[in-house]
Amino acid sequence: MTDPSVKIIFLGGLGEVGRNCACIEVNGRLIMVDCGVLFPELDMLGIDLVLPDFSFVRENAHRLDGLVLTHGHEDHIGAIAYLLRNVDSLDIYGSPLAIEFARGRVVEHGLAGKANFIAVSDNEIRDLGSVQVEFIPVTHSVPEAFALAIHTPLGVILHTGDFKIDHTPVDGRKTNLARIGEIANTVGVKLLLSDSTKAEEPGFSDSESSIKQSLGDVITQHPGRVIAASFASHIHRIQQLADVAVDSGRYIAVLGRSMKRNISIARQLGALKIPEDRLIDIEQTEGLRPREVLVVSTGSQGEPMSALSLMAAGENRWITLYEDDLVLLSSHAVPGNETAVGRVIDKLMRKGVRVVHSAIAKVHVSGHGRQGDLSTMMSVARPQNMIPVHGEYRHMWHNADLAMRMGLPKSNVLICQDGDVVELTDSTIAVVDKVPAGYTYVDGTVGDVVEEVIRDRQVLAEEGLVVLVLTVDAKSGKILYGPEIVTKGWIHAPEAEELLDEARQAVAAALEGIETEGVYDPEIFRRRARRALGKFVAERTRRRPMIVPVVTEV
Amino acid sequence: MTDPSVKIIFLGGLGEVGRNCACIEVNGRLIMVDCGVLFPELDMLGIDLVLPDFSFVRENAHRLDGLVLTHGHEDHIGAIAYLLRNVDSLDIYGSPLAIEFARGRVVEHGLAGKANFIAVSDNEIRDLGSVQVEFIPVTHSVPEAFALAIHTPLGVILHTGDFKIDHTPVDGRKTNLARIGEIANTVGVKLLLSDSTKAEEPGFSDSESSIKQSLGDVITQHPGRVIAASFASHIHRIQQLADVAVDSGRYIAVLGRSMKRNISIARQLGALKIPEDRLIDIEQTEGLRPREVLVVSTGSQGEPMSALSLMAAGENRWITLYEDDLVLLSSHAVPGNETAVGRVIDKLMRKGVRVVHSAIAKVHVSGHGRQGDLSTMMSVARPQNMIPVHGEYRHMWHNADLAMRMGLPKSNVLICQDGDVVELTDSTIAVVDKVPAGYTYVDGTVGDVVEEVIRDRQVLAEEGLVVLVLTVDAKSGKILYGPEIVTKGWIHAPEAEELLDEARQAVAAALEGIETEGVYDPEIFRRRARRALGKFVAERTRRRPMIVPVVTEV
Repeated sequence: MTDPSVKIIFLGGLGEVGRNCACIEVNGRLIMVDCGVLFPELDMLGIDLVLPDFSFVRENAHRLDGLVLTHGHEDHIGAIAYLLRNVDSLDIYGSPLAIEFARGRVVEHGLAGKANFIAVSDNEIRDLGSVQVEFIPVTHSVPEAFALAIHTPLGVILHTGDFKIDHTPVDGRKTNLARIGEIANTVGVKLLLSDSTKAEEPGFSDSESSIKQSLGDVITQHPGRVIAASFASHIHRIQQLADVAVDSGRYIAVLGRSMKRNISIARQLGALKIPEDRLIDIEQTEGLRPREVLVVSTGSQGEPMSALSLMAAGENRWITLYEDDLVLLSSHAVPGNETAVGRVIDKLMRKGVRVVHSAIAKVHVSGHGRQGDLSTMMSVARPQNMIPVHGEYRHMWHNADLAMRMGLPKSNVLICQDGDVVELTDSTIAVVDKVPAGYTYVDGTVGDVVEEVIRDRQVLAEEGLVVLVLTVDAKSGKILYGPEIVTKGWIHAPEAEELLDEARQAVAAALEGIETEGVYDPEIFRRRARRALGKFVAERTRRRPMIVPVVTEV
Repeated sequence: MTDPSVKIIFLGGLGEVGRNCACIEVNGRLIMVDCGVLFPELDMLGIDLVLPDFSFVRENAHRLDGLVLTHGHEDHIGAIAYLLRNVDSLDIYGSPLAIEFARGRVVEHGLAGKANFIAVSDNEIRDLGSVQVEFIPVTHSVPEAFALAIHTPLGVILHTGDFKIDHTPVDGRKTNLARIGEIANTVGVKLLLSDSTKAEEPGFSDSESSIKQSLGDVITQHPGRVIAASFASHIHRIQQLADVAVDSGRYIAVLGRSMKRNISIARQLGALKIPEDRLIDIEQTEGLRPREVLVVSTGSQGEPMSALSLMAAGENRWITLYEDDLVLLSSHAVPGNETAVGRVIDKLMRKGVRVVHSAIAKVHVSGHGRQGDLSTMMSVARPQNMIPVHGEYRHMWHNADLAMRMGLPKSNVLICQDGDVVELTDSTIAVVDKVPAGYTYVDGTVGDVVEEVIRDRQVLAEEGLVVLVLTVDAKSGKILYGPEIVTKGWIHAPEAEELLDEARQAVAAALEGIETEGVYDPEIFRRRARRALGKFVAERTRRRPMIVPVVTEV
């Protein structure tokens, strides 16, 4: 009998926040853990989503025995609909909530026929052929989150998913540290893959329930209407807001497509409990006194078309804000969104609305564990090897540093990159290969946007565009029309007519007599015209717009 | 004798961070307080700087008796060179350091002949004709900051500038609360204009000297080279870094143009004290042991071309980073820069460099006062009226709220907007007029970039561009060339040839037979071609690139 072969193939989620996706290969068979999207960074202009590179999966689809989901956040499930284009069919395992969150997007893409959704229970073990996957409850900012104990012939690979250790979770469902300890002390944790998001921060994360008092104070003490915005998937936060509302005699109305959808799913599954008679349509709030109303809304990230942004702009068709309203942002700005969130707050306050957010009151806690949570997990799991996952490079570094400070030898702690293939043996762990793991951009429906398109957009965004138009007689090389100049995003044409005139003259001068120089070649026209215009623009304006020469021949 | 007329005209700095600029008008004469730039927000694509609108100043230049500077930060002095284009000559008053910081930029623009720079001492009173301006020391994150007591016939207008109340400042120069109290109790503070930047935050700001211990621990305990990045104008921070370096036997080398310039100015003025023999050129660090070196560098905001970013990219010609180096970011990310700073940290750590920043250790404090500082100032100044300045709207709101909670009647607290003209009388304060106060954009050397250009850039950035080229016989209307399609930032042409072919066919089909329909009109060609292409693009790609039809006639 040959030694078992166990590999971990990272397709995303290392050194960035989102696009979480990895494969575990055991004796030639594969399972995938999570399949998320990355929300585009600020300089990925016009990009809606960033996916993992699925070329490895495409080539190995015949070896794939299923996808297991740690929890229902977009950065862990948002790319499933795109993955399904690369396979004939796929078993997808996850908590009931994660499955229902994932199903919606897959149905929208018309790919439901390819997905076999399988809801699993807390602590259930599923046989996926080459491995058994055990779904161990952990606490996070979405209900029903799991760590995965992946039982392999070499021992257990424990993938924490996203987690913190919340000893007083809103739904009472605690991280099952006892089971993790049992695994550690019986089969042993061969490898820990651990959430790094908050690994820079010392101390412990606060319990979700620790903000109940603050939320209650803000909502109960306000004599008028309250509009509370949070993450649409944060069902426990919505539960706490609803509980406060019910306790203080308010009715709850919901605004925003994703918020409505998620609340509906969570209530059907019993993950969210709001008494039927307290949940009303937004139209019904008209008949109530302001102090009887709590509106739960999307838009906590300042997204331009969200319910809250539209309210701030006075353009929400369902609700008009008044001076005695209070807006509660029970959230924090995801990195990159700080400016957008600040603008929405300012707009709301300019309307005279009172705004409470996490800089002013304790109305938000993170769902990710800090160093205390992370070391507790490591102490209980006692892994032989450790690889930090989820987070920017600096977060992974601090998570690795923590593992080493807790006693793991340097050789047993790996910081990996997307595309790394890690091989586990009985005594070693090492990167042995690379697979493609670049960005796949989604913009509209056209397949893939490539790097070059984004670089063009960056130049256009910074400097604008100058189109140089020239029509030439194909036989004689005589200029029949132009040079004409069309600009966009460079300088304002009506006010810069003089400059454009000079530019035309500079190009014309550079082309003068060119047709007498010999055989006509449109490429020479194009090159010479571009160079003359580039020189003029740089000297006169110190800018570097994109210059697009269009030479047509007739 | 008629009643004195006192007005405050806000040209910038209300509801945003930067571009601070206001005029005080007394009996028809004007002085200006500060003249700063705004660093462009993320969606002001390609813009280098945003200036105040100087059209009011241009029209009233003959009434302007001088510019007074509260302190030497760019958001208070950075627009002086642009202001000078609108006046024949100007007296500019400020601390020696603020004056020297301002002078550099003015000289670069070749406008030194228009500026009469006048350095003032702490607590000095200067007569500017219609008003006397008293320069009262306050503590801030640049040395020699002033509050201005502007003595008018109606009493004192007290402008705090940017400040916190630091009882143990690095240079021992404290906020002169006693003098402010004396003014309050003698002539009286008619109006307080007060810094709002940190008005959302309860408590008191920490003293600059409170981080000395932490800075010392980080630098002294590191066995190798230390590279410390901070704001180039933060002379007190540089002083503390230098003190620690000297105490622990390190030599100090400086990197980055603005850092070198400011350190040189500050040392000449005696505002920064580094022993001559401890300050070395970067080349000299080669001959030293790593533990004898502290490099002070620019780049704490992740600016792409700064010394630190170049180090992180391995492209700094003066310094190559090694695994046993430590980079200390003694700073915080200015809102909007979080992502850029995070990326630089990640790049540094990928090189194996140890990075310490303010999320990990106490190596930065703000120079702006929190609610405790702000209410201390109000308690001492006892103003009759108050207008919050400097900060986003939410910060100004909280500052106003604080004033009212401290007892000022609502009618005596105004939240203003840029362009507001506020009139003070013996018993009232009110907005009585508006002047132009929009954004003036600077991009390269071409005068003004207008809103429309930025909107074009936003479309180009999000969606890219499709140029449609068509050459038509001017007489017959027959198409001689095209339709040809050139794209930038839309889809990647080589991979999308098929789609472009279809697009060409769609446009050709729409134009078929058009020349037989009657009189030739290029506008009809243009409109019909654009509509056909727009429809095709929207239906096939769900994107909305900018479509530029170029119809040439020969």
